[in-house]
Amino acid sequence: MDNIAYLIPVAGIIALLFAFYKSTIVSRADAGTDRMKRIAKNITAGAMAFLKAEYRVLAIVVVAVAALLAYLYQETKLIALSFVVGAICSALAGLIGMKVATKANVRTANAARTGLNKALDVAFSGGAVMGLGVVGLGTLGLGSLFIFYQGQYKDIEDVLKVLTGFSFGASSIALFARVGGGIYTKAADVGADLVGKVEAGIPEDHPLNPATIADNVGDNVGDVAGMGADLFESYVGSLIGAMVLGTAFITIPGFKEAGFGGMGPVLLPMLLACVGIGASIIGTFFVKVKEGGDPKHGLTKGELISAAIMLIGSYFLITKLLPAEWVIKDVKFTAIGVYFASLVGLAAGLLIGFITEYYTGIHKKPVVGISEQSVTGSATNIIAGLGVGMRSTAGPVIIIAVAIVAAYQMAGLYGIAIAAVGMLANTGIQLAVDAYGPISDNAGGIAEMAQLPPEVRERTDRLDAVGNTTAAIGKGFAIGSAALTALALFAAFMKSAKIDIINISDPTVMACVFVGAMLPYLFSAMAIEAVGRAAMAMIQEVRRQFRSIPELGAALEVMKRNGDKEQEEWSAEDKQTFDAADGKPEYAKCVEISTTAAIREMVKPGLLAILAPIAVG
Amino acid sequence: MDNIAYLIPVAGIIALLFAFYKSTIVSRADAGTDRMKRIAKNITAGAMAFLKAEYRVLAIVVVAVAALLAYLYQETKLIALSFVVGAICSALAGLIGMKVATKANVRTANAARTGLNKALDVAFSGGAVMGLGVVGLGTLGLGSLFIFYQGQYKDIEDVLKVLTGFSFGASSIALFARVGGGIYTKAADVGADLVGKVEAGIPEDHPLNPATIADNVGDNVGDVAGMGADLFESYVGSLIGAMVLGTAFITIPGFKEAGFGGMGPVLLPMLLACVGIGASIIGTFFVKVKEGGDPKHGLTKGELISAAIMLIGSYFLITKLLPAEWVIKDVKFTAIGVYFASLVGLAAGLLIGFITEYYTGIHKKPVVGISEQSVTGSATNIIAGLGVGMRSTAGPVIIIAVAIVAAYQMAGLYGIAIAAVGMLANTGIQLAVDAYGPISDNAGGIAEMAQLPPEVRERTDRLDAVGNTTAAIGKGFAIGSAALTALALFAAFMKSAKIDIINISDPTVMACVFVGAMLPYLFSAMAIEAVGRAAMAMIQEVRRQFRSIPELGAALEVMKRNGDKEQEEWSAEDKQTFDAADGKPEYAKCVEISTTAAIREMVKPGLLAILAPIAVG
Repeated sequence: MDNIAYLIPVAGIIALLFAFYKSTIVSRADAGTDRMKRIAKNITAGAMAFLKAEYRVLAIVVVAVAALLAYLYQETKLIALSFVVGAICSALAGLIGMKVATKANVRTANAARTGLNKALDVAFSGGAVMGLGVVGLGTLGLGSLFIFYQGQYKDIEDVLKVLTGFSFGASSIALFARVGGGIYTKAADVGADLVGKVEAGIPEDHPLNPATIADNVGDNVGDVAGMGADLFESYVGSLIGAMVLGTAFITIPGFKEAGFGGMGPVLLPMLLACVGIGASIIGTFFVKVKEGGDPKHGLTKGELISAAIMLIGSYFLITKLLPAEWVIKDVKFTAIGVYFASLVGLAAGLLIGFITEYYTGIHKKPVVGISEQSVTGSATNIIAGLGVGMRSTAGPVIIIAVAIVAAYQMAGLYGIAIAAVGMLANTGIQLAVDAYGPISDNAGGIAEMAQLPPEVRERTDRLDAVGNTTAAIGKGFAIGSAALTALALFAAFMKSAKIDIINISDPTVMACVFVGAMLPYLFSAMAIEAVGRAAMAMIQEVRRQFRSIPELGAALEVMKRNGDKEQEEWSAEDKQTFDAADGKPEYAKCVEISTTAAIREMVKPGLLAILAPIAVG
Repeated sequence: MDNIAYLIPVAGIIALLFAFYKSTIVSRADAGTDRMKRIAKNITAGAMAFLKAEYRVLAIVVVAVAALLAYLYQETKLIALSFVVGAICSALAGLIGMKVATKANVRTANAARTGLNKALDVAFSGGAVMGLGVVGLGTLGLGSLFIFYQGQYKDIEDVLKVLTGFSFGASSIALFARVGGGIYTKAADVGADLVGKVEAGIPEDHPLNPATIADNVGDNVGDVAGMGADLFESYVGSLIGAMVLGTAFITIPGFKEAGFGGMGPVLLPMLLACVGIGASIIGTFFVKVKEGGDPKHGLTKGELISAAIMLIGSYFLITKLLPAEWVIKDVKFTAIGVYFASLVGLAAGLLIGFITEYYTGIHKKPVVGISEQSVTGSATNIIAGLGVGMRSTAGPVIIIAVAIVAAYQMAGLYGIAIAAVGMLANTGIQLAVDAYGPISDNAGGIAEMAQLPPEVRERTDRLDAVGNTTAAIGKGFAIGSAALTALALFAAFMKSAKIDIINISDPTVMACVFVGAMLPYLFSAMAIEAVGRAAMAMIQEVRRQFRSIPELGAALEVMKRNGDKEQEEWSAEDKQTFDAADGKPEYAKCVEISTTAAIREMVKPGLLAILAPIAVG
């Protein structure tokens, strides 16, 4: 083995150190008034309680699956170790990211009291901890195991077979984290919105809304921890898929001569990830905004600079690791072809981001169209929203399809896998931008709950508006990369299982395609029904509190009576009634409803996703 | 050619004669009071105006495509003739079915004044005209062309190549009829419901709701004419797909000896359809209900008896037409295997119907669950509805997948095609039961608008509740059969194009799968956005009428003031104000909005569906 492999865990450690540095920026910032600190404490406690409950369930799953793997793979028992390490790395990334995010939200709100750039800095630093934590733990875990296994197994195919457990561990956590976090956040969101905004006529984040803390907790567990686990899975999946396909080159003439014991194509994906870590770290320094400016420009600048560094760095890396050209079954391939395949992935990721931005940006046509159609009521609003949602799938799918064909033309199946790596190499900054979204969202909520002055809320609103879009971009990116990664893993699986052809005109294959196409609907049905049940419980709880806590009911009456009037203009009596309700809503009950529901309801769809492939197999 | 082929158009004529007989039952029934006649006249005029506008657009499409076909297929120019005949048969079936449906609705309402069975008889007779019209025109058109082309071409493959134009013609009409009719009915439905029920607080079918006529027209153009065209397409598609696959047997030893010039497997699909026509006609005689009983039992009885006749008739037919056993590439096939494949299709169709009934029946768990979740507001209602909708896909897809594998095991690809034929052979009675739905729905609307006594409305409500379910079953059946038919046509296409394998692990194929999977979303987005725009226009028009027609506004006030009080208890003045509004709503304007919107908006998604395969090809 070549010493170059040691670079991989080193890059992981550098990413983690940088994440630690970013977390100190967050920690050092001031958390603001006592009221703000109290709110933030509630959110943190709720988020940690959920994560604890979730990880308790996941621990059981991980131990059970690890035992099963050790039993099934007698000869390559270490796959169970990979699985456990993958699961732990994923869970750890979620934990670190969320811990810092729940610190960053209140500090962002406080920083917004002095200026926009300061607030952006805190919020983005919080996001960067998540982003670099994910890539750091991914490369550190994968790289260390890779080095360790090379000492254990002679055959590189065995090494990679055992290594796939890492990806499987990450997937298992991601599945439950995504479903559990998703159910939590949506139940809280629907509950808080409906009874608060629609029925009682108070803003979503108003301190008198009992579901408001649960709503903010939801942003953290769903959009920070859940999204982090999701991208962690795609990230390591793309790396391992490309590595498995890379083993096919070892015996091809030209590779041994290119050095690294002919392992260039196997090492390339992980080393591209290392370049991506460097690019992401450098990119973060360009995320800035002027007072009164648009934070979006700063974030986009950071992403584009990272992409530019990748563009240059990967050229040198690829041409160094691979021979200039080689021939497989009379087809000529080149290192430049592989380089272009990685660029295809990088470009596809950016393009999907821009499309998502178009469909979710606040001043863009689709969003404006939905708000226009909402004038005639909720039904036309939903029709318009569903329409835009379905239409928005077209662009990204076409981009992915074109990327697949282009990457395949340039470098075969390995090219597709490298395209996935190229798309995901910048995960560090992508996820940072993405996790910045829920942090800003929370900051806005805290500013509202703590009743900070309007100019503060204006700043947090500005961050939040961009944050909603970046969060959506993150989702688009996660889905796009998942599609490419899945294809790479699929090709890797076919290579390992020595399957050459899957004939879709074989009726049995077609029947399985039908069932496979149906499963997302069944899965979504389970998830959405879970959200429905949890939201209903939440709504009932909020209504109960409005009814049975007298101070709360009285304060709502006061608010309704005074309508749009500023609070300063209210009568002294009204002010007193209103203030008497402060702290009366029982936030913890709402948090508990979401937590219990999410933990209970995540199991069924989670098991469906795990068991269905086994059952069909 | 054997004389047995002449049976096919003869069966078609028998079906049409029976449809004519059923239409006389409808025509002879009394249309009720002057008020009822006036309402019915409005609905008929609206429905016919839409069909005329739609067919005008379709005529252009048909002529253009026919010219293109004649140009592209220089050697087999007659494919253009098939295309035109297929389009005309489909359009004719829609026209006849809708004409009778718009007669049957008011007569059903009137018959409900005397008894439930009489009302069921009229409504179901109206549906039977649609059902038998579709299968009659299908077999007559297809059978006649088949006989004619056998005189024109020596090669049976050429005959079938030319004949596929018939299926293509039916598809083109179906596509536009479904999209246009669907946009019409949903825009009117949403408009009438929202402003009427939700905003003004008057029932959906109340005579003071200006969109109520458009809503009733929508049931006819969408659920009668649109659904008829849809099933016509599946029906002839399944027949032609099986016939094409049947040509593969002609050279196999054993088939020549089985008689019919070795054409048994080619003739079998059409002759199964003939048995289905007989079974459907006999089945209709069992559709009856006792006063106070459930009309569902009568309808189910009719369907089951038809199925039983198919079960017996197809056994004799298949064992007569095919040799007892034969061998292809060392695999042994039997006539009994083909018979079982047809039963698999028949059973799958019935099972899908029962599942649909479970998901849409008024006292079943899913519907009750949705209504329970609606207590906490429209958001949880939609979440619950989406959840149930997505979950409901699981059962039918699994049934289709199992049916595909089972039919393939029993009789190869031909078995799958015969399963589709088996499922669709009973289209006559299936579509009758299905079209009975919108007729009953309309009858209820007319009873409401004509303010018939409560016991009449109770009867029409009972028919309508079942009708909503049967209409849903019809949709499930149409989709299930479309899946099987598509697979059969796909296999037939591969046979004609001499393609053996489509390798899904080929990245280009995978990219196309991605794009193909995305297209339904783009198509749905276009359709749903069209509905949104049209519904919004409808809502604005209704609001305008409520605002600007003084009698209407005054009457709405009166209704609101009197709340739940029976009309008899109102004050004399209120009664006068209310009566003054009679006939004031400008129904025609709402009808026009739906018509114009549907015709304009059906073009884009229609073209997408036609052009996308050509573009990818």
